[in-house]
Amino acid sequence: MANLVQPSILPGFMELLPEEQVEFNRVKRIIEKNFINYGFFPLDTPLIEKEEILLSKGGGETSKQIFRIEKAGESSTPQALRFDFTVSLARYCAQHSHEIHFPFRRYQIGKVYRGERSQRGRYREFYQCDIDIVGREKLAIENDAEVPALMYAIFSDLGLEGVRFHINNRKLLNGYFEFLEISCREDVLRTLDKLAKIGRDKVEKELEELGLTESQISQIFDLFKEGETNEEILDRLEGMEVENEVFQTGLSELRRVYETMQAFSVPEENIVIDLSITRGLDYYTGSVFETFLKGYESIGSICSGGRYDDLASNFTKEKLPGIGMSIGLTRLFYQLKEADLLHLEAEPYLKCLILPMGKEDLSYGIELVDVLREAGITAQIYLESGKLKKKFSYADKLGVPYVLIIGESERTEGKVSVKDMRTGEQKAISKDDLIQDLK
Amino acid sequence: MANLVQPSILPGFMELLPEEQVEFNRVKRIIEKNFINYGFFPLDTPLIEKEEILLSKGGGETSKQIFRIEKAGESSTPQALRFDFTVSLARYCAQHSHEIHFPFRRYQIGKVYRGERSQRGRYREFYQCDIDIVGREKLAIENDAEVPALMYAIFSDLGLEGVRFHINNRKLLNGYFEFLEISCREDVLRTLDKLAKIGRDKVEKELEELGLTESQISQIFDLFKEGETNEEILDRLEGMEVENEVFQTGLSELRRVYETMQAFSVPEENIVIDLSITRGLDYYTGSVFETFLKGYESIGSICSGGRYDDLASNFTKEKLPGIGMSIGLTRLFYQLKEADLLHLEAEPYLKCLILPMGKEDLSYGIELVDVLREAGITAQIYLESGKLKKKFSYADKLGVPYVLIIGESERTEGKVSVKDMRTGEQKAISKDDLIQDLK
Repeated sequence: MANLVQPSILPGFMELLPEEQVEFNRVKRIIEKNFINYGFFPLDTPLIEKEEILLSKGGGETSKQIFRIEKAGESSTPQALRFDFTVSLARYCAQHSHEIHFPFRRYQIGKVYRGERSQRGRYREFYQCDIDIVGREKLAIENDAEVPALMYAIFSDLGLEGVRFHINNRKLLNGYFEFLEISCREDVLRTLDKLAKIGRDKVEKELEELGLTESQISQIFDLFKEGETNEEILDRLEGMEVENEVFQTGLSELRRVYETMQAFSVPEENIVIDLSITRGLDYYTGSVFETFLKGYESIGSICSGGRYDDLASNFTKEKLPGIGMSIGLTRLFYQLKEADLLHLEAEPYLKCLILPMGKEDLSYGIELVDVLREAGITAQIYLESGKLKKKFSYADKLGVPYVLIIGESERTEGKVSVKDMRTGEQKAISKDDLIQDLK
Repeated sequence: MANLVQPSILPGFMELLPEEQVEFNRVKRIIEKNFINYGFFPLDTPLIEKEEILLSKGGGETSKQIFRIEKAGESSTPQALRFDFTVSLARYCAQHSHEIHFPFRRYQIGKVYRGERSQRGRYREFYQCDIDIVGREKLAIENDAEVPALMYAIFSDLGLEGVRFHINNRKLLNGYFEFLEISCREDVLRTLDKLAKIGRDKVEKELEELGLTESQISQIFDLFKEGETNEEILDRLEGMEVENEVFQTGLSELRRVYETMQAFSVPEENIVIDLSITRGLDYYTGSVFETFLKGYESIGSICSGGRYDDLASNFTKEKLPGIGMSIGLTRLFYQLKEADLLHLEAEPYLKCLILPMGKEDLSYGIELVDVLREAGITAQIYLESGKLKKKFSYADKLGVPYVLIIGESERTEGKVSVKDMRTGEQKAISKDDLIQDLK
């Protein structure tokens, strides 16, 4: 016998046991069903893209984390695994701009790859679930409300009532900084983004280090007041009389998004206007979103996104503005399980197991399993020989709620003994009543 | 402006337009629904595995076609993309043998990678849809019938009535060669596998070159008779009085599989006992299957598989026999489209598009789109401003069957004008009757 290879997977990859995988797939399916229900079209781009496409925005952190493919077969084009869907979406929209219809509403669910340091709850291979609406030349601000509303519908279906959409608009901040004559606006944004994490004192200190005056810093903090309602924040900002067009555009967009989210049935209490949310990525230009779970804020944002002015500027001269949000499903699933927050009501995965007592009962059992499946009831027949105890033990392990026992008497009388594994009750019924009884 | 990067993908990758992707996903969903209905559990192993796992069977052709990953981040373990699911299944079963329950019934649908020379209809990234039933120590022969029966259910749901399962058993051939005292049995099997492709004369010639005597060759061809029914073939083989235990086991297994497939509701005419089917891969040890479409045999086998004695011998000393079949979905989809064989009856992907005439109609439109989605009717509201003609042109391009027009009169009267895009008919109905009317 050859030496055995130790069966194992690489660190940083999630692999589930079958029962966990069933639950994961249920979550994934809920997400997809909502994407479809809202009229988003599926997209399934290659996992491998040309490196010049993936790195078209420039290298940096991304290029260090990328999984490069060594020459495979005949191809010598530098290629690598995608690290998100946004680059592929941009490439796709530019490549097919005359075959797709704008506003282009697409979803993509699949795996992406980042060579991050692997640690608890962080994965190098993970599912992302993205939706984007991409316009040509322009895209109405109401789209910025529909996208988080769809995400809200998903979290509701997942039973996560404590979900809070923190919304902001970068124009509002950028315009305000312009108004305050602050030049290093990107740096200030990045610093403010840490407000919830490191607190006001540390943020003030960092802003000082960026060269902001005391007056500028104090005026920045005029934006933030604790304990206000969403309406109070908007009213106050409108009353501040900031003479800057970008600020005023941002503010009116923010109000419009806030109000339209509610029109799309997101309850007011699930929306938090939060001016400290800025999103790290440079390419967001308007609305920005982060999503937290009330009481579980330490998990971090579970769904983020925002508005970008120009999706595909590296690939086309056409201006393609868009709005998108993304759920990092693998990490979310891990965290929801850790926090014991996932309690989906669902039919048992496998509803019936048929146990024939002897070989001669097999064909009757096969007839029954066919009838069940035809009626859409998931069913399996145990085809192995062996003692009844072993057969029941298999049923136990699978967690199947109904065991259908078939012996000589059942077979000759056209009946079946149905055992409810949760109550232990058992009764013999006619095979013609079986479907009715199980439904 | 920076130089533009040409938006394109690598050769050998399938990327679809949204409408095609919808159709592809429908096919994938039909496959998955059947897998679930038959009580197979999902598995989702990493796309990247350690090279020592992937190549545990030894290199050869596989190692040339493998997509290797260059060192990504901190990991220095040699790793590569999976080229099938079987290796990962073997690794998984060995790794988790005490956490999973045998017979272990799993399905996996996902992408695999092979650096083949790219050509029309051949892909380097493609979906496989696999089912396997893995036993511990032993596994009843009836499983070998259930697996193709499940595949038959799928092809029926896809509307491919002309599907033909060609079945054989390698024991039968191996035992027969043993009986004929032929030593190079693997070579003979591989040669016979080409019978349908290259014809009897060429096969005879190749067998001669392998050193077989005239008498051996003529006795091999005694196995094949044209124009016989399945029953006639089985009866004739049983009458041949071949004194070899392996042969007799293979023959009785073949009969059992043939009869049990019919018990599992596969019509007799969809089964072809075909002794020339041997499957190239060495690890099949009993039942083997290929699937052809009547009238489209040139497409080749659209679903193949078989029985193996020992799945995970490279990873564990436990003996894990199994039976599995696989659909190469990407190639199948391509071929079915090429041959115009795919005509799924399905609801339109997007059923309703709401067109508000003016800005002031938006919130009423949002109210309606919410009601539709709540009722499970896929719907979109057109949020952009613009002329009515442009809005209708968008509806046309999306191929949406119902357009819901909202203007001032509809809004003030609580109505909606529903236009059937296929007939051109338009009628105003109360918003309370909308769901009823559309269902």
